[in-house]
Amino acid sequence: MLRREQNDLLTQTGPGTPGGALFRSYWLPALLAEELPENECPPVRVKLLSERLLAFRDTRGRYGLIDEFCAHRGVSLWFGRNEENGLRCPYHGWKYDVTGQCVEVPSEPAESGYCKRIKLKSYPLVERGGILWTYMGAPERQPPLPEFEFALVRPEQRFVAKRLQESNWLQALEGGIDSSHVSWLHRGELNSDPLFKGAKGNQYNLNDARPVFEVVESPGGLYIGARRNAEGGRYYWRITPWVMPSFTMIPPRGGPIDDHNCWTWSFDYHSLRALTEAEVQAMRDGKGIYVKFEPGTYRPLANKDNDYLMDRAAQKAGRSFSGVAGIAMQDASLQESMGPIVDRTKENLVSTDNGIIMARHRLLRAAKALVEKDETPPGVDPVHQRVRAAAIVLPADAVYKDAAREELKVRPGLSHARV
Amino acid sequence: MLRREQNDLLTQTGPGTPGGALFRSYWLPALLAEELPENECPPVRVKLLSERLLAFRDTRGRYGLIDEFCAHRGVSLWFGRNEENGLRCPYHGWKYDVTGQCVEVPSEPAESGYCKRIKLKSYPLVERGGILWTYMGAPERQPPLPEFEFALVRPEQRFVAKRLQESNWLQALEGGIDSSHVSWLHRGELNSDPLFKGAKGNQYNLNDARPVFEVVESPGGLYIGARRNAEGGRYYWRITPWVMPSFTMIPPRGGPIDDHNCWTWSFDYHSLRALTEAEVQAMRDGKGIYVKFEPGTYRPLANKDNDYLMDRAAQKAGRSFSGVAGIAMQDASLQESMGPIVDRTKENLVSTDNGIIMARHRLLRAAKALVEKDETPPGVDPVHQRVRAAAIVLPADAVYKDAAREELKVRPGLSHARV
Amino acid sequence: MLRREQNDLLTQTGPGTPGGALFRSYWLPALLAEELPENECPPVRVKLLSERLLAFRDTRGRYGLIDEFCAHRGVSLWFGRNEENGLRCPYHGWKYDVTGQCVEVPSEPAESGYCKRIKLKSYPLVERGGILWTYMGAPERQPPLPEFEFALVRPEQRFVAKRLQESNWLQALEGGIDSSHVSWLHRGELNSDPLFKGAKGNQYNLNDARPVFEVVESPGGLYIGARRNAEGGRYYWRITPWVMPSFTMIPPRGGPIDDHNCWTWSFDYHSLRALTEAEVQAMRDGKGIYVKFEPGTYRPLANKDNDYLMDRAAQKAGRSFSGVAGIAMQDASLQESMGPIVDRTKENLVSTDNGIIMARHRLLRAAKALVEKDETPPGVDPVHQRVRAAAIVLPADAVYKDAAREELKVRPGLSHARV
Repeated sequence: MLRREQNDLLTQTGPGTPGGALFRSYWLPALLAEELPENECPPVRVKLLSERLLAFRDTRGRYGLIDEFCAHRGVSLWFGRNEENGLRCPYHGWKYDVTGQCVEVPSEPAESGYCKRIKLKSYPLVERGGILWTYMGAPERQPPLPEFEFALVRPEQRFVAKRLQESNWLQALEGGIDSSHVSWLHRGELNSDPLFKGAKGNQYNLNDARPVFEVVESPGGLYIGARRNAEGGRYYWRITPWVMPSFTMIPPRGGPIDDHNCWTWSFDYHSLRALTEAEVQAMRDGKGIYVKFEPGTYRPLANKDNDYLMDRAAQKAGRSFSGVAGIAMQDASLQESMGPIVDRTKENLVSTDNGIIMARHRLLRAAKALVEKDETPPGVDPVHQRVRAAAIVLPADAVYKDAAREELKVRPGLSHARV
Repeated sequence: MLRREQNDLLTQTGPGTPGGALFRSYWLPALLAEELPENECPPVRVKLLSERLLAFRDTRGRYGLIDEFCAHRGVSLWFGRNEENGLRCPYHGWKYDVTGQCVEVPSEPAESGYCKRIKLKSYPLVERGGILWTYMGAPERQPPLPEFEFALVRPEQRFVAKRLQESNWLQALEGGIDSSHVSWLHRGELNSDPLFKGAKGNQYNLNDARPVFEVVESPGGLYIGARRNAEGGRYYWRITPWVMPSFTMIPPRGGPIDDHNCWTWSFDYHSLRALTEAEVQAMRDGKGIYVKFEPGTYRPLANKDNDYLMDRAAQKAGRSFSGVAGIAMQDASLQESMGPIVDRTKENLVSTDNGIIMARHRLLRAAKALVEKDETPPGVDPVHQRVRAAAIVLPADAVYKDAAREELKVRPGLSHARV
Repeated sequence: MLRREQNDLLTQTGPGTPGGALFRSYWLPALLAEELPENECPPVRVKLLSERLLAFRDTRGRYGLIDEFCAHRGVSLWFGRNEENGLRCPYHGWKYDVTGQCVEVPSEPAESGYCKRIKLKSYPLVERGGILWTYMGAPERQPPLPEFEFALVRPEQRFVAKRLQESNWLQALEGGIDSSHVSWLHRGELNSDPLFKGAKGNQYNLNDARPVFEVVESPGGLYIGARRNAEGGRYYWRITPWVMPSFTMIPPRGGPIDDHNCWTWSFDYHSLRALTEAEVQAMRDGKGIYVKFEPGTYRPLANKDNDYLMDRAAQKAGRSFSGVAGIAMQDASLQESMGPIVDRTKENLVSTDNGIIMARHRLLRAAKALVEKDETPPGVDPVHQRVRAAAIVLPADAVYKDAAREELKVRPGLSHARV
């Protein structure tokens, strides 16, 4: 349970908030590279950390993320023309480059140099791993680009998607680091979803509904270990690294749009081989952690306006534990059902919530250290990002952090540990 | 005309308000019994007095009305599974019985007794007369079950319905005890609606547009007598009992959902015989005081988004005085047109509003006495509820409260007095 | 750039605001005469300066603009019956004439004179030029009726329309007096729109994207002169008179509905001859400054909910500079894209914004003088309204205010000066 002001600090990420300062320390996913498919294509509205921005790609392929509104009289540049190396406002022809610098004010004499004094707020926008990342903090503190393994493998080894979630980001994160709900909510899917079925670990998940959580700090965040009984007195461990602020090696992860909405980004990758055609097709079809969308949008087809297409008969018959189809929407429906921002002064946490409890404390501590002592938060350093999830069986007396030390690192040329 | 603070007191019924305390003294209709048609059927969201609740019916047929949100981390239990004698949260399998008691927290050892310490807010939910009633006040003050006559006759003698009204509850009540508008608003229907036409009293209503109101206190509220001229110097009396807080023997009656919406409940019953097939069919077809609904909801098909399907030609031709079809929607359209909460500091009341004026004073007095002196409000005692409406012709010098004393009581084996 | 309180003053027009006092000094367009097509036709809801009103036309053809809500208990009179010389509330039959005077309260004895004491707020409503005008200020200050030339010519010489714009009124006005954007935003239409193409002035507009603005005060507001290069060292002048508070001789002009919406009224007229059938047909088809509507409404078919039917291919190919079709929607889309009320503390104005700058100062000054010194604002006197727009070529050394003095007046029997 949190105090009101703690809940506020963790859930508010707009300009000027401590939580906002924390998020502005990191490279964050802003949009999919496929949303800006070619040079001079139409610009895309991007709302991030409660700031309204516009992403575009210029004639030479450079990406820009700038203030959505023209500096002149406030027209939305979404209506702009993507012209020769700049975005031109359709109202009076003011033109901006990818850095937000105004490069032309047609009504003013060029020799006046007026346009040089006009510059829109802008942030860097860089492609890595099929995602366009941005950094919205102070330029002098800009960290190196992210080095998450999924973002560094070859494109054919990876699948990336984003989905609108109509809740605060923290509800999405807390679901992502909560290994305990798998035995309940996704029970049906573990044995039927083409991307999940067949793994031996599923049976451990299903057979032991009372996992024991051991959570330990990592340089960039936490390892959240969930221990379930295996054969012969051994334990099955499912270890979810969380890298601050919102990256978990088990999806989804939330990136705040504003305080009531977030993007959840999902990826699958294989560290050694290309994904198969069948795997990619299943992901496109909304299996696994993916969803189907309302045409032309990133909003799920099953959403709060249609009660997530709840199937009470399937729920009753046990074909689906939740009645909502698909792992991602099972999570999203419940997280959204808490309301835009859940009131954490009223919850009752139990032992399996240890990951969530420690993650909140880590976030609170980091925000405080950043705001009060200017300390760079964990997870900014790319070294912190070179972690892997693992699902392994260990002897009863093993300390997983030590026993699985190697499996939790990115090891080039070696596959993930997964039972 | 009311002062601002009086209007607030009467129209606000959320937790912690004096008006809310008043409503929490009574058994209130929560939902139709038909909404929970069988054991282990899907749960139903119920918003009442601004509280978000969930109604369900367990394996043994017991009804429960509990907090909508799981005590663990706030997920909506509407997504829950109605299982063996309890509702199970789909997120981590926490299970609650109809009293809101948590009976299982799967992640915790059963021997820890953890779940015994978790109990959701809950209220009793009891079937009577086709309605599931709840009492949301302090348990030690819970009154006996309601004894309105319609709720005690055999099912085949009764028809009950509810309808969403998008206005504060008091606007619905004030319409219900306002016998004066019948001569105007429902003029066309009195002679054409299958459930109204043919009664001799209609002609009295139509012929005398200037009724004289005599309002007297009853133990549970008021008798509102409207006097119109009859033949031979006699008077036609239409007497509407109002039992606090919101029961009138002439429909509709409003039960607050929140301060901007209410359920209006309507019933017809015959004290001696079963309703005929033709009567029931007419009620199902939206005649009389009933309406047709948007499919799968209790929201009327004619509503504010479509201007109540206003038929200006019918209004002009006089086929309908109001242009809106049906008695219930004629009332609802006007009551909703006042806005969510009408500003009663700006009204101009006349003699025919006496019932409304006295009802408000009675409500204000009762709320004050309850909050300040802990006095049980009128209408809580079931004896107060054994009243009947009457429509009778009396000599000119008769005092209706005395002359119709017997007709205003529930008299087993005797029919209603109705001209 | 404005200070916060200046922006508030200019954009807020509700009762009790200084900006509201300013607007309440003038005759304002309330609705189209065609919205009340015959005697005793249905009443029409009119929201103006944040007041909710009802317009109707009685048995004898008199127009009335009265409070939307019945004085009795607040029902909307939109549901009323338009009967013999009055509007009758359908609830209890109270009846009002076009002045808002209650003429009948059926429940009260006629001899009581009760109804004489009930009077709804009302404003005069007068037809002139196909528009029903109202004056919402103090009766003792009511000015003479408007004498704009378009409103005084014969009906066949005129075309008038209104359109809902979902932004504050000032954004519409500032677009209307901003001659500078024509060279950019409407570039494509100047040569293709049937109501614009062919004028020689178009080429001046297209060839000189750096107009020089000269703005001078007129008795009723401003003349905004935009100078562009013509042949032989001469200048092409486009002179837009602005008459306070919101009339420009180049459309559109905004009339506040509330602070987030306005009606923009557009007219075309010829001072000497009837409009041709082809001209009228083009206007009906949404050419020129007109639009197509959502059926049965005055909301444009292209609106913010469908991104104004943006055509990126046409924008890219240069068939349309903006991608939005039609001059009116090009303006409206950008003005609405600024948000409901643009934040003028953040803008960067340039020389071509001189008209806007001076108009704001004139409005601020007039509101201050009205509120503090009770001074009648400019534009109230009909003499101030007898102005014309002009588009003429003048010698390089001419001062347009002097050289075009005659062309900027309404000259009966003489046509507009237009290149």
